[in-house]
Amino acid sequence: MSIAVVKPSYSSSPASAAASRTGAATATAGTGPLLAVTGQNLQAPLIQGGSVRYANLDYAASAPALCDVVDYLALVLPYYASVHRGAGFASQVSTSVYENARDTVRAFVGGRADDAVIFTRNTTDSLNLLAGCVADIVADSSADVVYLDIEHHANLLPWQRLPHRSVPAGTSLAATLARLETEFQAGSVALLAVTGASNVTGEILPIAALAALAHRYGARIVVDAAQLAPHRKINIAADGIDYVVFSGHKLYAPFGSGVLVGRPDWLDAGPPHLAGGGAVKEARLDSVSWATGPARHEGGSPNVLGAATLAKAAEILAVLDPQQLQDHETNLHRELVNGLEGLPGVTVHRLFTDSGKFPGSGTIAVVNFSVAGYDSGLVAAYLSAEHGVGVRDGRFCAHPLLRRLGLPSGSLRASFGAGSCTEDAQRLIAGVAALLESGLGWDYVVDSGRWVPADDARSFPQWAPNTPGTAGAAPCSTQ
Amino acid sequence: MSIAVVKPSYSSSPASAAASRTGAATATAGTGPLLAVTGQNLQAPLIQGGSVRYANLDYAASAPALCDVVDYLALVLPYYASVHRGAGFASQVSTSVYENARDTVRAFVGGRADDAVIFTRNTTDSLNLLAGCVADIVADSSADVVYLDIEHHANLLPWQRLPHRSVPAGTSLAATLARLETEFQAGSVALLAVTGASNVTGEILPIAALAALAHRYGARIVVDAAQLAPHRKINIAADGIDYVVFSGHKLYAPFGSGVLVGRPDWLDAGPPHLAGGGAVKEARLDSVSWATGPARHEGGSPNVLGAATLAKAAEILAVLDPQQLQDHETNLHRELVNGLEGLPGVTVHRLFTDSGKFPGSGTIAVVNFSVAGYDSGLVAAYLSAEHGVGVRDGRFCAHPLLRRLGLPSGSLRASFGAGSCTEDAQRLIAGVAALLESGLGWDYVVDSGRWVPADDARSFPQWAPNTPGTAGAAPCSTQ
Repeated sequence: MSIAVVKPSYSSSPASAAASRTGAATATAGTGPLLAVTGQNLQAPLIQGGSVRYANLDYAASAPALCDVVDYLALVLPYYASVHRGAGFASQVSTSVYENARDTVRAFVGGRADDAVIFTRNTTDSLNLLAGCVADIVADSSADVVYLDIEHHANLLPWQRLPHRSVPAGTSLAATLARLETEFQAGSVALLAVTGASNVTGEILPIAALAALAHRYGARIVVDAAQLAPHRKINIAADGIDYVVFSGHKLYAPFGSGVLVGRPDWLDAGPPHLAGGGAVKEARLDSVSWATGPARHEGGSPNVLGAATLAKAAEILAVLDPQQLQDHETNLHRELVNGLEGLPGVTVHRLFTDSGKFPGSGTIAVVNFSVAGYDSGLVAAYLSAEHGVGVRDGRFCAHPLLRRLGLPSGSLRASFGAGSCTEDAQRLIAGVAALLESGLGWDYVVDSGRWVPADDARSFPQWAPNTPGTAGAAPCSTQ
Repeated sequence: MSIAVVKPSYSSSPASAAASRTGAATATAGTGPLLAVTGQNLQAPLIQGGSVRYANLDYAASAPALCDVVDYLALVLPYYASVHRGAGFASQVSTSVYENARDTVRAFVGGRADDAVIFTRNTTDSLNLLAGCVADIVADSSADVVYLDIEHHANLLPWQRLPHRSVPAGTSLAATLARLETEFQAGSVALLAVTGASNVTGEILPIAALAALAHRYGARIVVDAAQLAPHRKINIAADGIDYVVFSGHKLYAPFGSGVLVGRPDWLDAGPPHLAGGGAVKEARLDSVSWATGPARHEGGSPNVLGAATLAKAAEILAVLDPQQLQDHETNLHRELVNGLEGLPGVTVHRLFTDSGKFPGSGTIAVVNFSVAGYDSGLVAAYLSAEHGVGVRDGRFCAHPLLRRLGLPSGSLRASFGAGSCTEDAQRLIAGVAALLESGLGWDYVVDSGRWVPADDARSFPQWAPNTPGTAGAAPCSTQ
């Protein structure tokens, strides 16, 4: 029983001096991985034969696990038991791990002492939970929820169920703040729901300024930090953020947990997210008295290992030098943007003209681009099949934003993180350059709504039989 | 990076010939473990000094992981990536794993070809999801949801939000069916919500007969199989079950996933469980077109590893000889019941006079009991501190049932599974016998609503600092 099938080889590198463990893949030059992650030496079979190290440029969708997180999982697993509800030794240890995970996560985001830390399934779940509570608030106050047109569906669809106003972002962050201020003046606002960093372009929103704006008009703010938390230090108390949400699976802990951190009053007053055991003080046959605190919204047996690993990842990131993490990503980002923009017919997409100049702005490790003359899905399939490069294509669960960008049929997204290296960026650039120079090296067809190589004879591992059609099972990327 | 901290020693035993791998703990006689699980040789520190192998008798709350499931996790982990939405090799493999998990789980419960398999967080989440869909059905039909007074809160509280009628179970299963039939005759019923096996007493409900009854009156049936699925073969098509729900964490795969399997029509018509990415066909700034199929209710990034490990556990259990699993548990159950009932002042609690006689009934690996003169919480604390035995005490998230049993302040529950051995049962019996003969060997006090040893100087592993008060954090076990 060991989680050791694909062992990355470890070596030190200048970039990783402060890390608890470093992971060097086969990068030949430039920036190496900052931290060791699972799958770092995974081999991807190529459509024309042979295989190559898989270049994972899809961190923004789901990041690989940190090896240190997997080690921690191994440490906790023998003690795993139901939390809260058992006097046994394993239950006591598991309860300690689970409850301490709240403190670790609260510290990771710079939370206030009384901020609730509620473990959920993922960011979407966290925002649905909050929306359930805000529904009561807006019903009592006749105030609206306000959101921009650049949001991921997770921070858009839950608010559509409430009284809401959507605001088109400006072409600059300065103009966007001015538009929001106009909206605040136009009518009462209960909550501003905004992303910390765009999942499409990686551009960082000035969350401290947005919080100050919301508070000036008596509103609260929730920051969707699914993309921001893995890449930048967050301090919700210092920045005046009322609620922050993010996911373990983008934070190098893909074990089914997300989190909501923030002010407890609305959460204790709102309807329990899930009706079930653990969420009650007293249940009767036809009525119930609900608990307050995190238990109110964590009905059912908690995902102890999910919360524990999310907290461990937060702990590991927290001890990194923030500047070192930012430099690592900035170097890769610059390399990739410069490389892609140097190719004829490649466009890198951005939202704001003042990103990086406006105080509190910047860009995380995401590059969004298109290749003239090629469907994005076809480019993604080509990069995977002929170069072993994994990127995401489609509309990134942000349909309104893609329409706004003039990309109604989608674009491509490359994203990276602590396990990425310069070679990953170089591989992508080389793949796109080869496409522009020589065209496709194989035939591709549309199957179940997605581009795939024709006559694909490669096989998956025997435990993962390729099911025809499943590649196109999710509608949001392809439409 | 290896999950190998506490390695059980493996050896063959007569009981485990058909198992893919067996785990022999330090059992000295009688039935050994049927399958290897994590933590099998965990040492529990004793309050009077020294330590002893932890006897885990709390499987019904959360079971340890099967070692084969952990190995599978190790196999998949390097390939982990976002499903559905990436053309990269790792995304394709992960999508294959995730979508194939649906088929494995559908087969595990004997599902119909068109049954939806929706991955959730846990059983509670599954039932909340279904309740959201049934709400529309009952609103249209003026029919009620009907449930018994023996349910776990997970299968009780979600239905309280809908038009419902609660029915007191009879003292026999025969009488219970008669009462339900009377209720069906009294007014239109849309859904009968019933447990497959009581989480309090382990008694199995005759689900095929209940399904036939519901169908005779035009109703559907949902079976809460959280307790049943790990212990008995389920065949929903053969038994006429419309929906079944259960959790990975009780099925030896504690990685944050549960599941709902059943007829797709109500599920495709109901409101999406979570509003977010992946659940939509097309999102606009102020409106949305929802997807159908599993995607409709799986908003946000799925818990790929949770679903994969749940399916792997199902696959492992499916190849066991059902009779072998049942015999293993029946032997332990008999040993424990006989031992406890042989002690003066110990009462074993049961619900039905005809359990084991009524067709389709029986008892899973759960024994509920009280010790005269002792608070249940005190007995649980004593068994843990002085004997290294882990049981659960309280009201088991089934408050109405505990009131019905005349146990408003709770009782004790011992439960076991594929990793249990005769010695576990013997340790519990010996501990209770010692209590009755010699009394407590230590002082105990109530802290944060729970009995704990006074002056407890034992320490947890350094990565699990004991946080005062957390042991009593959940209200449902102590009140």
